[in-house]
Amino acid sequence: MDFKTYIRDIPDFPKDGVVFKDITTLLKDAKALKMTSEALCQMVGDQKVDKVVSMESRGFFFAPILGVHFNAGFVPVRKKGRLPAKTVGQTYNLEYGTDTLEIHADAISPGERVLIHDDVLATGGTALAVCQMIESMGAQVVQCNFLLELGFLEGRKKLEGFKVKSLISY
Amino acid sequence: MDFKTYIRDIPDFPKDGVVFKDITTLLKDAKALKMTSEALCQMVGDQKVDKVVSMESRGFFFAPILGVHFNAGFVPVRKKGRLPAKTVGQTYNLEYGTDTLEIHADAISPGERVLIHDDVLATGGTALAVCQMIESMGAQVVQCNFLLELGFLEGRKKLEGFKVKSLISY
Repeated sequence: MDFKTYIRDIPDFPKDGVVFKDITTLLKDAKALKMTSEALCQMVGDQKVDKVVSMESRGFFFAPILGVHFNAGFVPVRKKGRLPAKTVGQTYNLEYGTDTLEIHADAISPGERVLIHDDVLATGGTALAVCQMIESMGAQVVQCNFLLELGFLEGRKKLEGFKVKSLISY
Repeated sequence: MDFKTYIRDIPDFPKDGVVFKDITTLLKDAKALKMTSEALCQMVGDQKVDKVVSMESRGFFFAPILGVHFNAGFVPVRKKGRLPAKTVGQTYNLEYGTDTLEIHADAISPGERVLIHDDVLATGGTALAVCQMIESMGAQVVQCNFLLELGFLEGRKKLEGFKVKSLISY
């Protein structure tokens, strides 16, 4: 399947000069949704996975599917203040200013093998923050798994030392 | 499986006096994640589904799984301004003030059979807004499907006329 034919370009979103890659046109197509789910699972191969971790909110589309496939649990990473129990946080730099992501402190156990999934790899700042969070909890990142990679933003460089796979690359 | 044993009570979240039902303890358990996915699918039975529609962001956990299972597409409903292409919006009342949800205008076609999924049925305001949005697009709501229902908030009454099913009830 040529997944790129299901992605829609939206010029000037979320701001002027940016061409946004809209994956909702892929999600709404029954066949593309199923094939994408299968392809994202295949990208992980036969590695053992204990937990799939993903960032709100577009990472949530495929992460639980990966969890079910690999007999793993699913753990959401959310913006500050949205998770109800005790959390571990990681602050990271944005273009202007900083942002903080949180994960439940009891969601990952030391020694667990964690698959990280998100919809898009852009600059890699968010994914690196999540990798660091997982490692600070004593767990191991087995792969960073993305639906779509914007290669020209060089996020892969920022994730050096981690295994990075993307289904669709621009 | 006794799904309730996987749900955690968080007192005073998001505000004093509210006991929040935390589903992340269910999601992180591999077996509970898989059994919940299967049970949510079983609740729909053999009804034909063209699209699964769900609200950000906790509805996204299981809606794409339902989509894949029923050979249906998945369509996210998001808060105002987050979807990149042309949208249809629905404003609804909150305890104080109003909120607006949006769906891509080209995501649902007239005559389609739509399954609505969310994590929690509380007062039913959000679900009703989504049902009305779907019907305004000329499509049919085949079921409102929830992981968890807070029966004492009587959301089911607000959704009168729609088929409502919940996996876990309080």
